[in-house]
Amino acid sequence: MSTIDATPPSERTRVRRVAQRGCYDRETLYAIVDAAYVCHVAFADENGVHCIPTACWREGDHLYIHGSNGSRMLKLAARGAQLCITITHLDGLVLARSAFHHSMNYRSAVIYGVCEIVEGAAKASALDTFVEKIAPGRSREVRPGDANELAATTVLRVAIDEAAAKVRTGGPKDDEADMTREVWAGVLPLALQPLTPIADAAPTGTPGYVQQWHETACA
Amino acid sequence: MSTIDATPPSERTRVRRVAQRGCYDRETLYAIVDAAYVCHVAFADENGVHCIPTACWREGDHLYIHGSNGSRMLKLAARGAQLCITITHLDGLVLARSAFHHSMNYRSAVIYGVCEIVEGAAKASALDTFVEKIAPGRSREVRPGDANELAATTVLRVAIDEAAAKVRTGGPKDDEADMTREVWAGVLPLALQPLTPIADAAPTGTPGYVQQWHETACA
Repeated sequence: MSTIDATPPSERTRVRRVAQRGCYDRETLYAIVDAAYVCHVAFADENGVHCIPTACWREGDHLYIHGSNGSRMLKLAARGAQLCITITHLDGLVLARSAFHHSMNYRSAVIYGVCEIVEGAAKASALDTFVEKIAPGRSREVRPGDANELAATTVLRVAIDEAAAKVRTGGPKDDEADMTREVWAGVLPLALQPLTPIADAAPTGTPGYVQQWHETACA
Repeated sequence: MSTIDATPPSERTRVRRVAQRGCYDRETLYAIVDAAYVCHVAFADENGVHCIPTACWREGDHLYIHGSNGSRMLKLAARGAQLCITITHLDGLVLARSAFHHSMNYRSAVIYGVCEIVEGAAKASALDTFVEKIAPGRSREVRPGDANELAATTVLRVAIDEAAAKVRTGGPKDDEADMTREVWAGVLPLALQPLTPIADAAPTGTPGYVQQWHETACA
């Protein structure tokens, strides 16, 4: 992969612990962001450090967040606060033959940066992109945001430049001496799965994205 | 619930945005912590604010984290860094009749504090508690940590005192004027679900916690 497709590690993003799990290519980073509905935003103010979950989505090389103008986090971020935004997908519990080598499989992305405020037509378009991420086609079905609703909403974006991913996959890495121990070893996989949709009222029809959710739902 | 069972809101933990979603009772907080395998730890150093995912568990009124002695986060936390630790469970996408009222169902907990270092017998016992959380009974099956492994591991705990939960449940809250709009509205539920266990090698037997994982696994 060319260096154009990678985010060069900075002092803050170079993965040190188990460095071989670090990834800086945009393909890996973007796949982790695109699989997420929620990120954790860390920032500091006069009361200390905070860590707040919020919805997120990606367009091009930017991660987007949004919310009420009244949000402390968004007000600080809009004024240029340094953010660290982290996304984590837990993929499984790794059960090794020794207590020490137990681990987890995961995909995480950490993005450092300062936000830009997204305004005007770009703001409405970004919010549509978010609705489309949740349910493709839905932005044309729902009542669009009116002027008051758009004015009450802050949309921010941060460039995915100073960013790193960290990924663990596969089974346990046991010490050779433990391999003969008679204990179950392997992975208990986990995934964020769809469950059966819950209609708010007798629906007038079921769009494709709800039907598909239903078909892939776990019992 | 008596005030003894609640964490009184502080300047940092009083929920302001949609304040009715804020909860300070320990029952709610502990259920959110106990349902989590992973938390996000925010802290600051000379390079700014960081947000790192790590495994977590609870014992009594404390949240525990652990890792290699070499971890920057653990070294700073062990030296008394102020932390903000956040756990988020995403329970569903809430599809409203207007773009603006789309939301998410979630349970989140935010804990502020400074860690204590857990040492000696308490350290070994805390690590056993973590293994038991992952797989009940397993701490007696695996090779326990030896002196070197325990010495290489830092275990920290933070009191769940300055803490708040925020929870959203239920369907969309639409404007009255939008209720007649012909669009599907409701919740697309999500849950972190078990998938089929992956044994590392021909297993000598299947313990109950693996069998149960298998039985509840999504296809």
